[in-house]
Amino acid sequence: MEKSYMSMFLLLIAISCALAKDAAKKETKETKETTAKPKLPQTLSRGWGDQLIWTQTYEEALFRSKHSNKPLMIIHHLDDCPHSQALKKAFAENKDVQKLAEKFILLNLVYETTDKNLAPDGQYVPRILFIDPSLTVRADITGRYSNRLYAYEPTDISLLHSNMQKALKLLKTEL
Amino acid sequence: MEKSYMSMFLLLIAISCALAKDAAKKETKETKETTAKPKLPQTLSRGWGDQLIWTQTYEEALFRSKHSNKPLMIIHHLDDCPHSQALKKAFAENKDVQKLAEKFILLNLVYETTDKNLAPDGQYVPRILFIDPSLTVRADITGRYSNRLYAYEPTDISLLHSNMQKALKLLKTEL
Repeated sequence: MEKSYMSMFLLLIAISCALAKDAAKKETKETKETTAKPKLPQTLSRGWGDQLIWTQTYEEALFRSKHSNKPLMIIHHLDDCPHSQALKKAFAENKDVQKLAEKFILLNLVYETTDKNLAPDGQYVPRILFIDPSLTVRADITGRYSNRLYAYEPTDISLLHSNMQKALKLLKTEL
Repeated sequence: MEKSYMSMFLLLIAISCALAKDAAKKETKETKETTAKPKLPQTLSRGWGDQLIWTQTYEEALFRSKHSNKPLMIIHHLDDCPHSQALKKAFAENKDVQKLAEKFILLNLVYETTDKNLAPDGQYVPRILFIDPSLTVRADITGRYSNRLYAYEPTDISLLHSNMQKALKLLKTEL
């Protein structure tokens, strides 16, 4: 009996040592990972195209659009909305869309502005609106959903591309 | 005469070769640098503290301040203003200020908002305003310049620190 108790005791010690080692290893690994990867600064692109130039605020975007005579493209989205995330992935991975986006003043917003012109049929995400350099909202440039005119699904990326081309034909072209 | 023409000609060839080589070298170097350093994405911190959490827009900042019951600190600045740049350096390098800044909802803006409450004595940079979570602009928290009440120089960083402490004592504390 005494022997079996003893072996039981040794076994327990062995097991707890192994667990402790594992825990220590894990901790070291985690510490290493924390050290190796410093917190990345938040970006203005938020994943919609890191190589594109994004404006920070609506005021900045309007100013730049007016002064550069480029149309403005505003993407309303949310981090915890799967539709937004799926559209973002399609948008960021589509080379033609990314290339065409260079011709726009770009803004992506997680928080709505106070300007009601940016919500012609309500506030929802994802929602993409174009604004002419004359500061006119292009309410005529819509997607394929009648209940949410400015919504796009990832499968609508070619429609979005052609809408971007439409937006590039400015309402009032300065000579 | 013919000889001197010839040597002149050779000299010219030698010079243009050297110039061409230099140009080629420079070009290679530039290409290498471009390849080695990919374009960094624009950050919300804009150099005012990469490890801090920055909001993107005034609307977001107001929402977060109200809902987190943290005061909001808004820094107006410009990239091509040496006073802004000097204050930014002092702000980013001061550990006490950076530590205290964690207790705020933070926003730095290059473009002015349309809210006139953010310009009690005019629009200038650098200009720092505090807003209470009750959404009241703390016009009482000022710097040391009577003609520009919300301006700070790099040498005023300890005054800014004590103003931050003042702002943390909220006007209406929720129980």
